[in-house]
Amino acid sequence: MFEFDIDAQDAGSGARNGRFHTPHGIIETPVFAPVGTQATVKALRPSDLHDLGASLVLSNTYHLYLRPGDELVRDMGGLHQFMQWPGPILTDSGGFQVFSLSSSRKIDADGVTFQSHIDGSRHRFTPERSVAIQENLGADIIMAFDECPPPNEYEYVKHSLTRTHPWLLRCIEAKTRDDQALFGIVQGGIFPDLREESARFMMDLNLPGYAIGGLAVGETKAEMAATLDVLNPILPRHKPRYLMGVGAPEDLVNGVLRGVDIFDCVLPTRLARHNTVMVLGGKMNLRNAQYERDPQPLDGTCTCYTCQHFSRAYLRHLVKANEILGHILLTTHNVHFLLELMRRIRAAIAAGTFRAFADEFLSHYA
Amino acid sequence: MFEFDIDAQDAGSGARNGRFHTPHGIIETPVFAPVGTQATVKALRPSDLHDLGASLVLSNTYHLYLRPGDELVRDMGGLHQFMQWPGPILTDSGGFQVFSLSSSRKIDADGVTFQSHIDGSRHRFTPERSVAIQENLGADIIMAFDECPPPNEYEYVKHSLTRTHPWLLRCIEAKTRDDQALFGIVQGGIFPDLREESARFMMDLNLPGYAIGGLAVGETKAEMAATLDVLNPILPRHKPRYLMGVGAPEDLVNGVLRGVDIFDCVLPTRLARHNTVMVLGGKMNLRNAQYERDPQPLDGTCTCYTCQHFSRAYLRHLVKANEILGHILLTTHNVHFLLELMRRIRAAIAAGTFRAFADEFLSHYA
Repeated sequence: MFEFDIDAQDAGSGARNGRFHTPHGIIETPVFAPVGTQATVKALRPSDLHDLGASLVLSNTYHLYLRPGDELVRDMGGLHQFMQWPGPILTDSGGFQVFSLSSSRKIDADGVTFQSHIDGSRHRFTPERSVAIQENLGADIIMAFDECPPPNEYEYVKHSLTRTHPWLLRCIEAKTRDDQALFGIVQGGIFPDLREESARFMMDLNLPGYAIGGLAVGETKAEMAATLDVLNPILPRHKPRYLMGVGAPEDLVNGVLRGVDIFDCVLPTRLARHNTVMVLGGKMNLRNAQYERDPQPLDGTCTCYTCQHFSRAYLRHLVKANEILGHILLTTHNVHFLLELMRRIRAAIAAGTFRAFADEFLSHYA
Repeated sequence: MFEFDIDAQDAGSGARNGRFHTPHGIIETPVFAPVGTQATVKALRPSDLHDLGASLVLSNTYHLYLRPGDELVRDMGGLHQFMQWPGPILTDSGGFQVFSLSSSRKIDADGVTFQSHIDGSRHRFTPERSVAIQENLGADIIMAFDECPPPNEYEYVKHSLTRTHPWLLRCIEAKTRDDQALFGIVQGGIFPDLREESARFMMDLNLPGYAIGGLAVGETKAEMAATLDVLNPILPRHKPRYLMGVGAPEDLVNGVLRGVDIFDCVLPTRLARHNTVMVLGGKMNLRNAQYERDPQPLDGTCTCYTCQHFSRAYLRHLVKANEILGHILLTTHNVHFLLELMRRIRAAIAAGTFRAFADEFLSHYA
């Protein structure tokens, strides 16, 4: 279980095709995981996700712990059964949401006390608690409890590693299920020495996979790329690398170039809720008056259900009228856009043409 | 075009199986038409409607005239193309919404002036205008412009017929497309003499179908049934009869018993938006705490996607968390519930067992 087979390695970059084995199936990498924060990828049914070609789905420990509760999910048969996603699931540790969503949080060496963003009730997460919750949820891949520090503050980030690293050891110690892969999360902000320190600490633990945390949280794209360039030669090549919270199309390609295997992001579903779709090289906001009488599909080359059926004029009507079908159709297109991009990335790596593919694709985002 | 073939007539009631031929396909009757007010059946894609077995879909002239505008729909290829529903569509005349949704309306012998419920702008509908708008939308079945009076006020209802009947003649005169069937709407409230007067006036016009309007607007169930009993022997047997705005399960069965062929209602989609599903003999509100840890499907005998996959506990979680998937899954179940009921009704009529079927079904609603 949790073997990672590398089927192809791009000659001119860190890109590789792999297969990560989990209890609920094989994840072909590089992979993008749609996010189902509250045990649902917003506006999509599991059958839709399947039809779109999703393999890995992410869900959020913080949200599910607060509502409906991890014990309820466990008693209903676990997250796969509860949300009826038969494929692989990844849960985060809850740490990121505690720091970004909750209020009145107090961090100490042992853990974090915080107030729910839903009802203000007080709660406490520790590494042990995070693992216990994630064991109740039952995902295939679970994440170590860590702190996600502001990426540019050297002293803060350095001190934060003195929490994140012992917390990882406690997560390993607390873990009881052998059908879940615990990934460590490399932190260190934008600082090469701290990233290297964090990566080397974790590599010694021989975990089934390594996440790169603390990016896409305010640093520049150049800083993100430089950080990935630092980690690419350090992280073990025979383990999957997961770049957390990244989903902009150009970031996916840049991440794959630098050896990343797994991505997740709310971007496709969140953009859809803001009436926006991704197209090659940019975005379109469907509320824009220019689409009022536009009979074209969003993208004439796209094979998604939305583009195969509906005009921009109709989609604009739906979003103007605040119809749920607008959310459904825009979400469908955006998730398809990223999953199709990953399929093309995997095909290009297999064909030995990924460098050229990446150059051409990124030229649309220059 | 617009032939109505009667394939089976129930021996013990007015129920019959028919096929109504339209430019976009044959409607097997008795039929329930889901309502797509704003050119979308809320929370369902056309492919979902198809999978659920919908044949006829209703859309609202008043809403589409105001937004996105009937001329835009015409320019985008008409309503079938715009909303990508390839099957039969029925549009109402806009009259009912003018009376129920708009403000500052003033009715005169020629038509109605009203203010938009969206932006307060002033508009005027006449029989000619309603037909012109419906011709722009391009539905297979269009409705005469009428007044829907309060059902219990005899003098008002009687006077209202002196508007509704001349308006029907003007609709017939205004109509230019021969690929649309114009139905007249029998009014007359709960008063047998007025209903008979209205029905006989319309029958002389030899229209392709007849709607029964002005019911399900405040009268009792007994008054609705009595009114249908008055009309059943009067209305021509070889034309489809359409009971407008009726969708409660027991009303569907009672309507079929009394010779009704076509029904429409927002009930299944509206209930879903209020976290409520239909089950045999009643309803369930998924916000109810009793479902918090209930692993059962909504209905263990139901074959819809929702019941085949999800627990009440999960559905309750979705509605508590205000997730779009909750709307989608509850809508799916409710629309399936009514379409499945109609399938069973048609099968019972074909098998000669409809009277027994109706008695058994209605016993759950006694």
